[in-house]
Amino acid sequence: MKSLKYLTWKIINFRDARDWKQFHNPKDVAISLVLEASELMAHFQWKNNLEIKKHIATNKMEISEELADIFYWVLLMSHDLDINIAEALEKKLKKNEIKYPVEKSRGKHTKYNKL
Amino acid sequence: MKSLKYLTWKIINFRDARDWKQFHNPKDVAISLVLEASELMAHFQWKNNLEIKKHIATNKMEISEELADIFYWVLLMSHDLDINIAEALEKKLKKNEIKYPVEKSRGKHTKYNKL
Amino acid sequence: MKSLKYLTWKIINFRDARDWKQFHNPKDVAISLVLEASELMAHFQWKNNLEIKKHIATNKMEISEELADIFYWVLLMSHDLDINIAEALEKKLKKNEIKYPVEKSRGKHTKYNKL
Amino acid sequence: MKSLKYLTWKIINFRDARDWKQFHNPKDVAISLVLEASELMAHFQWKNNLEIKKHIATNKMEISEELADIFYWVLLMSHDLDINIAEALEKKLKKNEIKYPVEKSRGKHTKYNKL
Repeated sequence: MKSLKYLTWKIINFRDARDWKQFHNPKDVAISLVLEASELMAHFQWKNNLEIKKHIATNKMEISEELADIFYWVLLMSHDLDINIAEALEKKLKKNEIKYPVEKSRGKHTKYNKL
Repeated sequence: MKSLKYLTWKIINFRDARDWKQFHNPKDVAISLVLEASELMAHFQWKNNLEIKKHIATNKMEISEELADIFYWVLLMSHDLDINIAEALEKKLKKNEIKYPVEKSRGKHTKYNKL
Repeated sequence: MKSLKYLTWKIINFRDARDWKQFHNPKDVAISLVLEASELMAHFQWKNNLEIKKHIATNKMEISEELADIFYWVLLMSHDLDINIAEALEKKLKKNEIKYPVEKSRGKHTKYNKL
Repeated sequence: MKSLKYLTWKIINFRDARDWKQFHNPKDVAISLVLEASELMAHFQWKNNLEIKKHIATNKMEISEELADIFYWVLLMSHDLDINIAEALEKKLKKNEIKYPVEKSRGKHTKYNKL
């Protein structure tokens, strides 16, 4: 798989070739993240588990594109705010390991503040 | 930066140690993506550009965590649906290069179907 | 039940007493609608139908408040943009009656463009 | 303006004529609220205040329809969960009057827990 550095470079290249940085303020970029996540979610609405399984099988490309759109904005915002997203993820996982100790949280979908 | 493969492996490890796969159906995972993207967006609400700049300067860790949360779910869903997210992103960029030709879209925030 | 006119008047009174109109531009108000709808949705995440039923029984006040928050922003935006929301709803229903003819759409969750 | 009771009755009539109640579980209805709020928000993305003003002037019907869609789901969910939405709104306003005392919150977009 291509590296995060390479993918970020491709995205910024794509963006800058179109002179779109001027529009990419954090508020509107965050709106993009919500809109793309909503489009992904719409794929699964009104469907039960079996229907979702079938839908994924026949719409894998569309779903991949929605995930790619979200990923695009994650990398773009990380770049623009000078955030090392790999490092941020590892830090967050470490924090969550403390918030959700294995023994207390195993097999439960309870929020950490109610564990 | 750590590779996408490594980060995905860490996420799935974290998840499976807690036996949470049973909850991670696509509908609820997509809901997570929307919720995390909304939390990120909330950081920028009611603020003008200057206030946003200041807010980012003093809340960089919180914002990094929100982006990390979104990234977490992107990688988890890609893993569970067997989607190569790096490849999906490159494909989407290629598609967008056609949808948004440089000459037509430079400096404009017009949607492709209105270009 | 109180009338839409009365409820709108109460909301605008509450807002104007705090001099908040200056913040209520359409972009940030629409963000509020998304954030409040997300909070409502979070109540039902990770839960199956039975768990949702139980959750509603024990959290009815919280859920009512989330719905009230959404309703608040619907009425506020309608007021600020000078939209008669009751009329808008009736018009939309008429449109949907044509988009979703009873015979074609009965018992199906298919979108109108795929009916 | 038509009453909330009448509008709710129209909505439930529309729904039941199509036998759609079977799909209207709280999770999917809440997803609808998020999706419709997102569509409304999309109208204002990438635009500055002046562009938003112009956009509203030329797209008032579309924006009214988005607001009507959100209103539709608020009334439908209130009906299905047996929530008196007018009463819920008045209660929430009373609560917010305490959370946001006029003297402390006037002219500020600060969250109540930071006032």
